[in-house]
Amino acid sequence: MKLIRFGLPGAEKPGIVTEAGTFDVSAFGEDFGEKFLETDGLQRLAAWWEKNSGSCPQVPAGTRLGAPLQRPSKIICIGLNYADHAKETNAQIPQEPIVFFKSTSSLVGPNDDLTIPRNSEKTDWEVELAVVIGKKASYVEEKDALDYIAGYALHNDYSERAFQLERGGQWVKGKSCDTFAPLGPWLVTKDEVKDVDNLRLWLTVNGKTMQDGTTANLIFKIPFLVSYLSQFMTLLPGDVISTGTPAGVGLGMNPQVYLKAGDVIELGIDGLGTSKQTAVAFK
Amino acid sequence: MKLIRFGLPGAEKPGIVTEAGTFDVSAFGEDFGEKFLETDGLQRLAAWWEKNSGSCPQVPAGTRLGAPLQRPSKIICIGLNYADHAKETNAQIPQEPIVFFKSTSSLVGPNDDLTIPRNSEKTDWEVELAVVIGKKASYVEEKDALDYIAGYALHNDYSERAFQLERGGQWVKGKSCDTFAPLGPWLVTKDEVKDVDNLRLWLTVNGKTMQDGTTANLIFKIPFLVSYLSQFMTLLPGDVISTGTPAGVGLGMNPQVYLKAGDVIELGIDGLGTSKQTAVAFK
Repeated sequence: MKLIRFGLPGAEKPGIVTEAGTFDVSAFGEDFGEKFLETDGLQRLAAWWEKNSGSCPQVPAGTRLGAPLQRPSKIICIGLNYADHAKETNAQIPQEPIVFFKSTSSLVGPNDDLTIPRNSEKTDWEVELAVVIGKKASYVEEKDALDYIAGYALHNDYSERAFQLERGGQWVKGKSCDTFAPLGPWLVTKDEVKDVDNLRLWLTVNGKTMQDGTTANLIFKIPFLVSYLSQFMTLLPGDVISTGTPAGVGLGMNPQVYLKAGDVIELGIDGLGTSKQTAVAFK
Repeated sequence: MKLIRFGLPGAEKPGIVTEAGTFDVSAFGEDFGEKFLETDGLQRLAAWWEKNSGSCPQVPAGTRLGAPLQRPSKIICIGLNYADHAKETNAQIPQEPIVFFKSTSSLVGPNDDLTIPRNSEKTDWEVELAVVIGKKASYVEEKDALDYIAGYALHNDYSERAFQLERGGQWVKGKSCDTFAPLGPWLVTKDEVKDVDNLRLWLTVNGKTMQDGTTANLIFKIPFLVSYLSQFMTLLPGDVISTGTPAGVGLGMNPQVYLKAGDVIELGIDGLGTSKQTAVAFK
């Protein structure tokens, strides 16, 4: 299944995307989040859909999409997980995963505007494959990790490089601004993603290709990451793991290139859809 | 007011502590969390309490306390915010606040057991004053910061030093394990805290004093911290800012001292109560 949430910010309703269109599944009676996932919501929704799809209204074209998940307990990001990106930022290839958090208050819909924070001069992009956790995971073994994954989504891990790197040591300051985590369009359940280790991911700014990579180049693979993270914290249903970005960010260019109001950022991953943000100044 | 949450983990009910005892205020009909705070819950509860206190049952002695807040969107911590602690860890005094997140899944009740994580050899303590945000805060000025604070609570920012410092760069790995954030006993509303800049805070291990400091020594004061953080992210009602720890952590000793199963950790802050955790091995 491809799950969406649509409607005004804070009042999103659940929906499903199929080849026949985009359908409102509010009648199922549950929003997509921690409780839904931990109570086998995906299976229950699929069974409900088989019986009720005929009575679900279509979602009008042009309707805003929210993030395909309610606010999770965590957005965990992996740093420098593509060798080409580590190289462009003059960083060593990590011996083990570099882990940081983004605030969950940075989460927005896939096509919402990107607000460039006040006093920002170095707002940058990062197309990433996000993993969505499906059930509570603590000390999970790598061989079992897939059982704990609900699905995957497209994520743009926006980063303010001065806040991240020039303001006192930890990265969270540059990762957590409002609108810095557009997620979606869809939460694609894992059964629909044939080979998650071989997906093209790309990003353009004003139509110019900036990133064009493949998840085949992930240094630390998804089952390893789920297992690894679960040694340090309990992953809850709905938690998001953003797996890192390939080369082509603004920080890595010479001269460096950063976003300004009016810029249009588009990105996509094979099978996970595309998203588009327009950069706007803080008002 | 002094707010508590009591009962079994995941099924806590709201309560109030007064000089007359500890009372169950479930009849108010709301748990203490983001929605309660953002809808002027503190004022509404105070008004309700004036009329209904006589009909509220006492909470039996010995009842477990949960954290005095539902899981917030963020637990934000300030690193090295006491000069003596910076010195003992051989760190420079920071030019501006060092900011990191703890996972919200690490939150537990004030007297719950501390679980030493699997493979941990360096689990350490940190008594801290936690600020609880009362309303949405974005780009707040320092002079207005107090308006955005609901109250204060006692917090033990448990830290696994090897996970934090020897495993690849960002601190979050050593701060986010289950049970690493015992909060409470109480959320004390700000009107009850006369001088937040002059509170003694202390911690003992097996009865021996390890930390004995005062918030007078905070390098970055609370209004500055609220304003500062709100430049990088939106603070939501219920968000916790843990303001840093004074000297006396295990990492700073020579030789270093870390927790083992059976150790008893007690801590307190003037006016914010005390808490007590027993360290247990991971099972």
